[in-house]
Parts: sequence; C-alpha cells; structure tokens
Amino acid sequence: MDLPHIGRLAAGPRNSIADVAGVTVGHCTLDDGPVQTGVTVVVPHGGNLFSHKLPAAAAVINGFGKSAGLVQIEELGTLETPIALTNTFSVGTLVTAQIRQALQATPGIGRNLPTVNPVVMECNDGYLNDLHAFAVREEHFRQALAAASAEVGQGALGAGRGMSSFGLKGGIGSASRKAAVGAAGDEYMVGALVLSNFGKLPDLILDGRPLGRELAAGEGPDAVPEKGSIIMLLATDAPLDARQLKRLATRAGAGLARTGSAYGHGSGDIALAFSTAQQIESDSDCVHAALLADHLLDPLFHAAADSVEQAIVNALFAAQTVRGRDGHVRTCLRERLASFETPP
Amino acid sequence: MDLPHIGRLAAGPRNSIADVAGVTVGHCTLDDGPVQTGVTVVVPHGGNLFSHKLPAAAAVINGFGKSAGLVQIEELGTLETPIALTNTFSVGTLVTAQIRQALQATPGIGRNLPTVNPVVMECNDGYLNDLHAFAVREEHFRQALAAASAEVGQGALGAGRGMSSFGLKGGIGSASRKAAVGAAGDEYMVGALVLSNFGKLPDLILDGRPLGRELAAGEGPDAVPEKGSIIMLLATDAPLDARQLKRLATRAGAGLARTGSAYGHGSGDIALAFSTAQQIESDSDCVHAALLADHLLDPLFHAAADSVEQAIVNALFAAQTVRGRDGHVRTCLRERLASFETPP
Amino acid sequence: MDLPHIGRLAAGPRNSIADVAGVTVGHCTLDDGPVQTGVTVVVPHGGNLFSHKLPAAAAVINGFGKSAGLVQIEELGTLETPIALTNTFSVGTLVTAQIRQALQATPGIGRNLPTVNPVVMECNDGYLNDLHAFAVREEHFRQALAAASAEVGQGALGAGRGMSSFGLKGGIGSASRKAAVGAAGDEYMVGALVLSNFGKLPDLILDGRPLGRELAAGEGPDAVPEKGSIIMLLATDAPLDARQLKRLATRAGAGLARTGSAYGHGSGDIALAFSTAQQIESDSDCVHAALLADHLLDPLFHAAADSVEQAIVNALFAAQTVRGRDGHVRTCLRERLASFETPP
Amino acid sequence: MDLPHIGRLAAGPRNSIADVAGVTVGHCTLDDGPVQTGVTVVVPHGGNLFSHKLPAAAAVINGFGKSAGLVQIEELGTLETPIALTNTFSVGTLVTAQIRQALQATPGIGRNLPTVNPVVMECNDGYLNDLHAFAVREEHFRQALAAASAEVGQGALGAGRGMSSFGLKGGIGSASRKAAVGAAGDEYMVGALVLSNFGKLPDLILDGRPLGRELAAGEGPDAVPEKGSIIMLLATDAPLDARQLKRLATRAGAGLARTGSAYGHGSGDIALAFSTAQQIESDSDCVHAALLADHLLDPLFHAAADSVEQAIVNALFAAQTVRGRDGHVRTCLRERLASFETPP
Repeated sequence: MDLPHIGRLAAGPRNSIADVAGVTVGHCTLDDGPVQTGVTVVVPHGGNLFSHKLPAAAAVINGFGKSAGLVQIEELGTLETPIALTNTFSVGTLVTAQIRQALQATPGIGRNLPTVNPVVMECNDGYLNDLHAFAVREEHFRQALAAASAEVGQGALGAGRGMSSFGLKGGIGSASRKAAVGAAGDEYMVGALVLSNFGKLPDLILDGRPLGRELAAGEGPDAVPEKGSIIMLLATDAPLDARQLKRLATRAGAGLARTGSAYGHGSGDIALAFSTAQQIESDSDCVHAALLADHLLDPLFHAAADSVEQAIVNALFAAQTVRGRDGHVRTCLRERLASFETPP
Repeated sequence: MDLPHIGRLAAGPRNSIADVAGVTVGHCTLDDGPVQTGVTVVVPHGGNLFSHKLPAAAAVINGFGKSAGLVQIEELGTLETPIALTNTFSVGTLVTAQIRQALQATPGIGRNLPTVNPVVMECNDGYLNDLHAFAVREEHFRQALAAASAEVGQGALGAGRGMSSFGLKGGIGSASRKAAVGAAGDEYMVGALVLSNFGKLPDLILDGRPLGRELAAGEGPDAVPEKGSIIMLLATDAPLDARQLKRLATRAGAGLARTGSAYGHGSGDIALAFSTAQQIESDSDCVHAALLADHLLDPLFHAAADSVEQAIVNALFAAQTVRGRDGHVRTCLRERLASFETPP
Repeated sequence: MDLPHIGRLAAGPRNSIADVAGVTVGHCTLDDGPVQTGVTVVVPHGGNLFSHKLPAAAAVINGFGKSAGLVQIEELGTLETPIALTNTFSVGTLVTAQIRQALQATPGIGRNLPTVNPVVMECNDGYLNDLHAFAVREEHFRQALAAASAEVGQGALGAGRGMSSFGLKGGIGSASRKAAVGAAGDEYMVGALVLSNFGKLPDLILDGRPLGRELAAGEGPDAVPEKGSIIMLLATDAPLDARQLKRLATRAGAGLARTGSAYGHGSGDIALAFSTAQQIESDSDCVHAALLADHLLDPLFHAAADSVEQAIVNALFAAQTVRGRDGHVRTCLRERLASFETPP
Repeated sequence: MDLPHIGRLAAGPRNSIADVAGVTVGHCTLDDGPVQTGVTVVVPHGGNLFSHKLPAAAAVINGFGKSAGLVQIEELGTLETPIALTNTFSVGTLVTAQIRQALQATPGIGRNLPTVNPVVMECNDGYLNDLHAFAVREEHFRQALAAASAEVGQGALGAGRGMSSFGLKGGIGSASRKAAVGAAGDEYMVGALVLSNFGKLPDLILDGRPLGRELAAGEGPDAVPEKGSIIMLLATDAPLDARQLKRLATRAGAGLARTGSAYGHGSGDIALAFSTAQQIESDSDCVHAALLADHLLDPLFHAAADSVEQAIVNALFAAQTVRGRDGHVRTCLRERLASFETPP
C-alpha cells in the first residue's frame, strides 16, 4: 500500500507545516539504549514571539494530558513562545527552558514586563523510552530550537522518537492543504504537525480502509488499554482571531477520528492552532485586525481536518522501527505492510 | 451498494436507540405541500422525568444552533424532560409545549417546586419546508409524545421530514452498539438517534468509501454554503455520571467526522448523552451512584462513535425522496445510487 | 438610608445602560391580579441587528437557568436580535416572537439567509406571578420593543414586575460607569441593566453594609431555598471583541457578589455583554476591527462590576411594593427601611 | 482596626484549611536578600494520592496564569498529587519534583501505570523576589512536603514569602467555615487557603469597609497596572463530585470580589476545590458515591465565599513587612494601619 493523499484538497509545496510562511521546526533526538525520546520545537515566526504575539487557541478533545500553557491561551488568545513537544515527564524541564529562552530575548520579563506563558505539550513515550531516566534536559530544548528550519523531519525523531501509534511506530508527521476561500477563491495555507502516539492496531483506518483490522486478523485480543495521546498543531496564514482558531483547532478532531480514533480515555488529544497573518504587538494599545468572516471558513475547516489526517498517516509512513527499553520494539508500518502484503 | 455495518461492534436486537431499555421514540410528521416538517420526541424512561431525572451532558461540537436547555444541563448534569426535535423556527413552540406537559405531570412546578428545563433541539429544514409558515404547533409535540414506542421509525418523518444531508434526503436515523466492558466483559448498550441535516455531496464518506466524490463527479461546483446541522442523541444503560456522559457525547463527533463532516461553519453539530442506569430523585437529599471507572470507558467510546456513524448512514438509507416548498426536491440515496450504479 | 453611589467611578448622565449611545430599553407590564409579569427588551442599536450584528459574549456564573440563544453566541460571538427578558415560562413565546420580528425586517431569513438566533433571558417570578397562566403573549414583546427609548424605567415593571430580591421587591435596575482607559485616559462607557430576582434577606449587603442581617434580626430562620436568578446585561462603547466581552461579562459576577450573593444553587446567574463600537455586517467577507489591547481593560472591568452592583441596588430602591397571586406580597426596600429606621 | 470575622457562619476550631480532617500544609521559605520566595504544599490526605485520588475541580476566573495540571482535572475530575504553590518561574521545577515524588510512592507510574498529573499553581512575586534567580529547587518542594502539618502558618512564608496584595504585603492566608446542610442541619466543613498576590490599594474593601480608599487618600494615582494573581484552594469534607466541586470553586470568586477585586486583567485568579469525603481507588472498576443533592449546596456555597474572603483578610493581617530585591519593600497592613490610625 502506498502513502495515500487524503481528501480533495491539494497540498502545499512541502506538504508540511512549513508551507505556512515563516513556520519552522527543529528536533533534538535522544537515542541511547533505553532512552528513546527527544524534543521538537515548532517556531511560529522568526521574530520575538513575546513582543510580537500570534493569535492562538486550543481545543481539548480529550483532556487526559499534561500540556502546559493552555489556561492562559484560553483567556488571552495569544501565543508568546514557540511550542515545545516532548515526553510527559519532561514538561517541567521544558517549561523552565522556555522561560530562560524568553528571558534571553526579552530581559524585562518578570521585571517591568509581565511573566511569559511557556507552551509545552506532551505524549507518553514510556513503552519505548525509560521515562524514569528524566533524560531530557534544558539544553535539548535549545538544540531543537537552534535546529529549526523549513525542512521538517518526520517519523521517529525529536519528541516523536519513542512514540507509538496503533501498536506501530508513531512519531512526528506533518502535512499541509491549500484552501480556496470566498467567491474570489483567495488561497490560504493550513499546515499540521502532529506528535502521534495513540490508537490500537485494530482501530487503524487508512484513507477509509480498515487496514488495522486486516493487519490484526489472527492476533489475539489486545488487552492493554491505550495510554497514548496525540498533539495536533495547526498553523495558517489566514487572518483569524482566537475564537476562529478555536473553531479551526476543533476540526483537528475530525481528521483524528477518520484514522480510527474514538478519542480513547487514556489518550490526551489536544489541538492548538495559530495564525501567522497578523502579529499582536505587546506594547501597543490597539489591536488592528482584518479577519475572514466566519461564513468563509469551511474550506479552512476541511483543510484542517485533512491535513491532520494526512499528518498522522505521514507519521506512520515516515517512521522507522525503534527498539527501546526492556527490549520493547515498535515495528514501523512499512515493515508491517511488507510482511503483510508479501507473506513468506 | 448495500447498507453497510459500521465498525467492529455488534448492534443490539433493534439496532436503534430503543435497544437501551426504556427508551422510546415518537414522531409527528407534517406533509402538506410546502410544509414538510414535524416533531420527534425521544423519551428516556416511562416515568416522571422531572421527579426522576437522569444524568445527562451535551457536547457542542459546532454551536451554530438554537437548541434550548443546554445551559442548565451543563450546570446540573440532569435531564428532566423528554428531548424534542424539530425545525429551527419551532423551538419556541415546543419549549412551551414541554413546560405544559411537565406541569400536567407535576403541577407543583413553578409553584412550590422549581421550574422545569425543557430540552428542544433543532435543525434548519428550510430548503424543503416553508419555515415561515410556523406550521408546528404544541399539539404536534403531544402527538409525537403519545406515539412514542420502541419501534423507531427512521428516514423522512417526524422532525426529519424536511431535512437534507449531503445534498440528499436526510432525516432521522438510529442505531445501537453493544460494548463489552472490563475484564469480565460486562455488556452495556449504547444507542444513537440523529436528526441528520448536514453535509455537501462531495464530502460524503460511506463506511470509508468516498462515495460523495464518485456521485458528484461531473457535477459543477456547489457554491451554496452548508446551512445544515446535526443533532446526535446518545443513550446508554451504562452507569455514568454527567462528566462521563460529556466524554461520551464528545465521541459523537468522531462518528460524524467519519461520514465526511468537517463540522461545517453553518452546521450546528450538537450531541447530548444520557444514562438510564440510575435515576436521580428530585426530592432526595442524597444521590447514590455506582459508576463505571473512567479507565473502562473505551468500549463505550467506540460504541458511541460507531452508533452515530451508523445512525447517519441509516438515515440516508431509510429516507425517501421528498418534494417540498417552491418545487425543491431532495432525492434519497437509494434512488441516487440506483441511477449511479445502473446508468441508463 | 439613602441610595448609595457604588465604587469610585463616575456614572454617565443617565446612570443607565442608555448612556451607551444607541442603546434603548422598552417595557410591557402585565399587572392584573395574580398576573404580575411582563417583558423588557434591550435594543443594542437602532438598525437591523441581523444584518449589522454586534460582538457579544455571555458568562454563565450559575447555569440553573433557561435562557435561549447562548450556545450560538458562544460559538460565533455575535448578537443578532435585541435581548428580551421575561419570566421562565414565557421564553418559548418570546423566542417565536423574536423570530417573527426578525423576519419582518429581513424576510430572507430561513430562505436564502441563515436562520436567526433569538436571545431571550429569564427569571422565575412565580412567587408573585401566576406562571401557570402563561400570560405573556407575542404581542407583549412587540409592545415592549415599540416602547424602547433611552428613558430606562426601573423597578417593578416589564419583566421585573413580579421579581423578588432578598425577600424584598426586585425587578429592573440600571446604571452606568465611565472608564478612563490608557495613558491618554480615553473615556468609554459601560452600562448595566439587571433583571434582579435573587437572594435571601440576611445576605443583603448594601454598599458594604450588612443591611440584610440588620433587617432580618429577630426574624426566624428562612427555610425556603432561593429559587431566584439574575440576568445581568452589559453594554459598552469600548471596541472589544467577543473574547474580551466574555471577560467583561465575567466581572458582572464581582458586582453581584458584593451585594451578598454567593451564586445560590437555584439562582440562574447569567451575564451577557455586547459592544456597540463596531458592527459586523453579515454579508461582508472581511471583519475589520480596531480593538483595545487587553492590558487596558482594568478600568472597564471595574466599571462592569460597579455598574452591576449599582444596578442591583437601583432595582431595590426603584421598586414599589407589589401584591400578586394567592395574596403573596413583596414589600419594597424603601418601605422596609422606613419601618426599620423609624420603628413605631 | 481589628481582624474582622467575615460573614454569618462560624469558623472551625483552627479557622484554617486544616479544619477539614486530614488536610495538612507545609512551607519552605527562601529569604536571602533579593531572593524572597518559596514553596507551599497543601496535602489533601495522608495516604497515596495517586492510588487513592480525590474528586476535584477548578474554576478559572481569570486565566492570566501558568498553573499546571488543570487540563486533566477538567477532564477526569480527580486530584492525584498534593497541590504545590510557588512563584511563576518555578512551576517547571515543581512539576518535575511532583513527578519524582509520585514515582517514589508508586514506582509503576509511567511503566505499567499511567503517568501522573502534577498540580502546581503560581503567582508572580517578581516585585520583591528576583525571579531571574530561579532560586526554587526540587528539594524545596520536598522540604515543604516534609513540613506539612495541621498547624497552618500564614503570612509572608512559603510561596507567600514574596507576594504582594493591594500594594501591601500579601502571602498565605487560610480560614474555615462550618455549614449546616439540609433539614437535619448536618455539619460540613469548608476550608480555604489562598496565595494572595492581587489588587491595588484603593480597591481594598475590608469586611465591607472601603479601607483602601481611606489609606490611599492623598496618594497620587498609581499608574502601575496590576500584575498579581490569587490562587484559592478549597477543601471540604462534604461528599461532592467534580461537577459540584466546580460549582463550589466558582464561589471563591464571590469571596474574592468582596475584597474589592474586579478580577484584574493581569491577575490569574484561579480556584481549585477538592472533597476528602470519598476516595477514588485507581485500580477499582467501580466508583461508589453517596453525594449531597445539589439543592442542599447553598450553605456550602456561602462557606466557600466567606472562607475565601476571610483567608484573604487573614493573609493581610498575618503578613509582616518584607524587603526584597532592588530595595523593594512591601509594608504589611498592620504597620500601615498603625500609622494611619495613629498619625504622628
């Protein structure tokens, strides 16, 4: 089975979140025996995010998760740091790392300026990775940040290094879709990046095909409850405010569902969307905005759902097999498909 | 194409919301030239709902809708009237009808007892139905209520009479799924009933197949924005409280997404879930509950997603073609499939 | 005790919600033996609200209430009808009346245009008023609307006719506060109008003084649970979007608390705020906004809290004693104070 | 002016959160020149919170804050770690410290068991404390935890060391109220503990008296915007579930408002409530609960509002003057009152 193109919309030139101009992504991967984890940083724009914030909103589809920073985003509707992704036990370390990074760029934070709201999101990679090692350190955040570029690595790297999805190797996936909006067909880009770590094999639906059932046929029942999660980031260059971005983020759940997820109890399924169209200057007394009317949003909603579904699929196809702690192994989809399609 | 069975779980004996013991459904259909509308009532149990409430919760997936009663359900987590479904302009009339019905059963309401919270949910059937006729009257609610039974009529009847879905005839659909919970595999039932009135043809996905694209091939672009909606009701005999039922209701959105919806801007997509397992007596000072632990909920979540998807599909297959106001016609899926599969 | 001025900010010239330019208020009062009820309509601007919507948001402080229209406001952040206030059992009638009124102004609603979201808010006046009479009819809404003016009647009239507050006569109250914003001290107006129907006498705090305890001294304990509610409307000419207006509406709860409320279980305490600064044209593809930055909002927050507290106090001082159904009487504060301050 | 007793309800024997049986509080204070900060830990019960969780809920009154752990509490309604309080920049460190502490008690976390949700709440003490020093380390959390007892220290210690309130010295305050519930008058305890760091002097209302205006008279206008916050913790031995505890937590905002707060823009005002009545065993498949009916909650709501107001007042009266970074000084209320009441 080849990598399918999801839905009816065309992808951008990179088919990644970096198709939204200015967005870059960096990884720091820790691959050392039982330590299979890392950090991924999504940088929304190249300037100072604290002084030039972006409108943003989160949709908590299933809140069994430990992401940091969502309370303030809900209240103020702005993103003021890059978005750091990592494993569940490393959120605290990256919260501190984000604050230090922000201080370096804006020393007045916590002095004459307000404090900063670090955004760190996570999934539990404890099957492959030795969470108890607390291997992620602040320098890994800085390395991931320094490595940020428009070339978005996908698969078993960065925060995705130790992640599992549908009993297969999960990790980082990204995709984009172009949306033609309004009578004039103005084109906007929606890009998605996921940290994919959810699902049980029999649930997997690939572009409408119940592939998981086929792959799992003959296997015994899998009694292990899902302890995964997925973080779904959406970027767009469409001019939207926080209320509209919350609507966009909610559509990530549609893309997720189409891969077979029913938003499992143990899966922290959280989406975060931001718009790069207009920056909010923190020292300005007036916020000027020229927003798309809500009645034009449907193409963007489809782009959000499709790009998230595509990003999840891309993560599965990009991943390689990883061996981690205690001999645990996650086989990648390509290997699994190869043995399925060409039985010995 | 035959009516598919959605997902991996088995249906209950009726494959309708009435598989949840005690739940009944009644319709009153108005079919008179430009008036193509009606009322559907879902009765959660046969007793006095005001004095014996049920735990309930709503999930507002897209709030472009005018449903009544959700504010109090969010606060108190209880359902104290049947759930009435109708067209958008008839919500007010049915709110009043519900109050009168409750007063008849419990005359102390609004005297020595608190007031009652009528739940009325709606979709916009204005394409086929002459909304401006305000044809639904209080007596139609009473007729639907009196007609309630465990035989759940589906398709173009009751509140579904004038509804459209994917440019085809929509309406009422229902389904059920059995969920085996916990190590002992205790069986619980989840039933869904939808008032399906959303979607554009090219978006339709039927059990994973992009049927809408196939059917729409050769048609010009459809520039009319979606003005639909879907109401998704979930009943279960699993003992869940309001917080857990909100989680269950959220999974309706997963089933909806799998039919191709990206939760369109103009579509009020709202789910409401209730549990029949334990009644809350309004004059009791203590509420006893024995609830399923949250870590057991995954089978119920899958049952909710699958039964909603199945109910939407069932609505499409059950509907007949309807002609309404100003010569508007909605062809049913079976007819459309027949001409598609057997071209002249 | 004289009517106090609440807080440190100055009132506008009318000290009512009509100090926000363009806002008018109309009442229709039903005073006929056991029927002591009515309708109050707050008209946000004099034009067509459906085609020229206003940004708006609600804060549900205690959701034991049956207000209509809040779901869509939460999603879309716009107000597209006047706000109608009435008793709990008349919400349905006024929902229909609002739709008919909107159709008259915009016949395309529900045809080529989307449906309309009628906003109707309520309190339970069943102590004085015979709710079971269902005395409010659609024409009463039209009469209240036709009577709308910048002269805001207060006390026991309109929807406030049968309302009770702190065991005294409640009803309609209004007030305004001027807020100086930013370094330049730009002046904005915040106006409040309340439908006040909450509280038990011993809880009453009047401008910081525990007057209720003084008045209730010597009375036996009041075993009747609160079955009241309060609706708190806030208007402002400050340019705010829906997210910011939700923040403003939340501050209504601060003013309410200072009168002694702990947001009683049975009291539906709901605030709704709108801004008149910028209209959102429904047929425009772009929404231009020039908003105040959030860091400037504190003076508006104080104005919201203070004007709500003042409006509640004004309702108490403006009300007259009313006799209603079954010989029930609510004495007004002025009478009660007179006998308290000048005992026989 | 003496320390007033707020409201009409009686306090428990300690007039602190420790009046709720089993609740203990520990502090670790850092007092070293420009470092004026610390950690406070509230321990809900003496056992293993991960295996024996408590129902809990948060109310975000103003979400300009960086508290960790609220997303999962909203979804699952349970508390599974102690509640750690500290300064804004130390949240990350304490998140990690909480995880390590939970691992020590339950080594299966993140292996065969799910991960743990650390709850860390914060205010910005940057006026007195050198936030940039990142002085709080994980060992300070452990010291605070080890020091936990039913003797609740109040004032300028623990996390309250560097906090300011109304331009005066703020910090830790605690109080309790007894609520008689139902016809039988069953007594339940509500305890509050606040980390008080909000407000500008002219806004201060002390038991109804506008003391702040009196104290600030003659001072020039204070142009510095509020950058404070308040964390309000509520404990109760009343049997409530998460939905009801969210209602209780919301009433913290009423107590806060009565001290003069209008929930300032820059003030992260967050309440968290938990019940000690019934523990939720994490390995049980059934959750048994015997809950108070909602119609009995009013006395608890008043107890919540009053105990929070009292706790804020107690923090002001308990605090001592503190000198911190860059010569910044916060005078305590007692000193300020002394010079006000006895002018030289």
